[in-house]
Amino acid sequence: MLLGRVAGTLVASRKEGSMEGLKLLVVRHLDVENEESGGFVVAADAVGAGVDEVVLVATGSSARQTERTRDRPCDAVVMAIVDTWEVGGAEKYHK
Amino acid sequence: MLLGRVAGTLVASRKEGSMEGLKLLVVRHLDVENEESGGFVVAADAVGAGVDEVVLVATGSSARQTERTRDRPCDAVVMAIVDTWEVGGAEKYHK
Amino acid sequence: MLLGRVAGTLVASRKEGSMEGLKLLVVRHLDVENEESGGFVVAADAVGAGVDEVVLVATGSSARQTERTRDRPCDAVVMAIVDTWEVGGAEKYHK
Amino acid sequence: MLLGRVAGTLVASRKEGSMEGLKLLVVRHLDVENEESGGFVVAADAVGAGVDEVVLVATGSSARQTERTRDRPCDAVVMAIVDTWEVGGAEKYHK
Amino acid sequence: MLLGRVAGTLVASRKEGSMEGLKLLVVRHLDVENEESGGFVVAADAVGAGVDEVVLVATGSSARQTERTRDRPCDAVVMAIVDTWEVGGAEKYHK
Repeated sequence: MLLGRVAGTLVASRKEGSMEGLKLLVVRHLDVENEESGGFVVAADAVGAGVDEVVLVATGSSARQTERTRDRPCDAVVMAIVDTWEVGGAEKYHK
Repeated sequence: MLLGRVAGTLVASRKEGSMEGLKLLVVRHLDVENEESGGFVVAADAVGAGVDEVVLVATGSSARQTERTRDRPCDAVVMAIVDTWEVGGAEKYHK
Repeated sequence: MLLGRVAGTLVASRKEGSMEGLKLLVVRHLDVENEESGGFVVAADAVGAGVDEVVLVATGSSARQTERTRDRPCDAVVMAIVDTWEVGGAEKYHK
Repeated sequence: MLLGRVAGTLVASRKEGSMEGLKLLVVRHLDVENEESGGFVVAADAVGAGVDEVVLVATGSSARQTERTRDRPCDAVVMAIVDTWEVGGAEKYHK
Repeated sequence: MLLGRVAGTLVASRKEGSMEGLKLLVVRHLDVENEESGGFVVAADAVGAGVDEVVLVATGSSARQTERTRDRPCDAVVMAIVDTWEVGGAEKYHK
């Protein structure tokens, strides 16, 4: 999964019908030091994530394995809100 | 999903039979600031997008989860036309 | 889909049985200006493409959605031969 | 599969229900010389890997082909702990 | 498919049960000129490839479309041994 921070939201009123009702988030990628690493993805929200929250994004067909995204043309989904992670024994982020 | 702007169209008369009737678009990637970021993709159109519109593109198997692309050898689909997005509280694009 | 030019052919006599009979092409990536962009892929041919033709390549599971590639360990397929495309109102390629 | 070293762990209490009970690992990519190559991925653990162990990570839909990850929105899984590898006749790593 | 040369082997005794019996190969990427291009992948062997042989690697869900890899958490498989390829009318490799 990709690690990212919710940077904002995106609205698209004209879309494939099955995408109705999905909230779309702009998620900036984070590195293991909790710094933005330059990239981003537009992902559907499966967990009620808010702006500035640190999240995990699943991509590809795995992005359709949530209740909200099943069988939809969605290739990226926020499927978890991160509480904390540590690397090399040091905590890099705490919600 | 990828964020992009429809830059043009592509015609291919000789193709796998199941691709008949699909409109093919050349979509340039956009970054979160609404600037072109260098890459592009050729995507099938599932929503009637026109040149210069800002769109979302789903890739991989998710590109086959629309009525027009199901079971076709299509790995990228325009599945939404973007109205607006905001990042860091600032609107970056408005249709 | 990726845009590319067929640069050559590849022969592999020892292979997974289901790959028998598939023609394999070396396809160089093209950018929107019809210039080679450096990368390449080895793809199965589903449309009878010849050397120097400009083609579309579908990758991933979508590469198995043609009659010739179904259920085979094939992750890239030439599924269309390009006639023309235009970007910004200018024709960039014509067969 | 990707080669990596388990660098740490990640906790996410609010997540898609099907992700409950999965341990999440921060895995740094390794090159063939057993040096970190800069990237990382957050992967579910299917084999009980511990911090500092060298592992293989399967991504995409293949990440759902383990008992612990089936049908879950998981696109990366640690599915093996590496004992040793050799390249060019030289052993590059031994557990 | 990716073009590569088998550079070595990898052993992992603790792994997801379904991976038992699969031989794992370290495959370095090749460019169209038959030069190593820097990357590599760890792939399961479906065709009995040996060290130094030039091979094709299928990735993603297509890596599970061989008898040896079906339904396993395997995202890369050596599914062909290359005899020869030519580009621009010049043979770049002959076994």
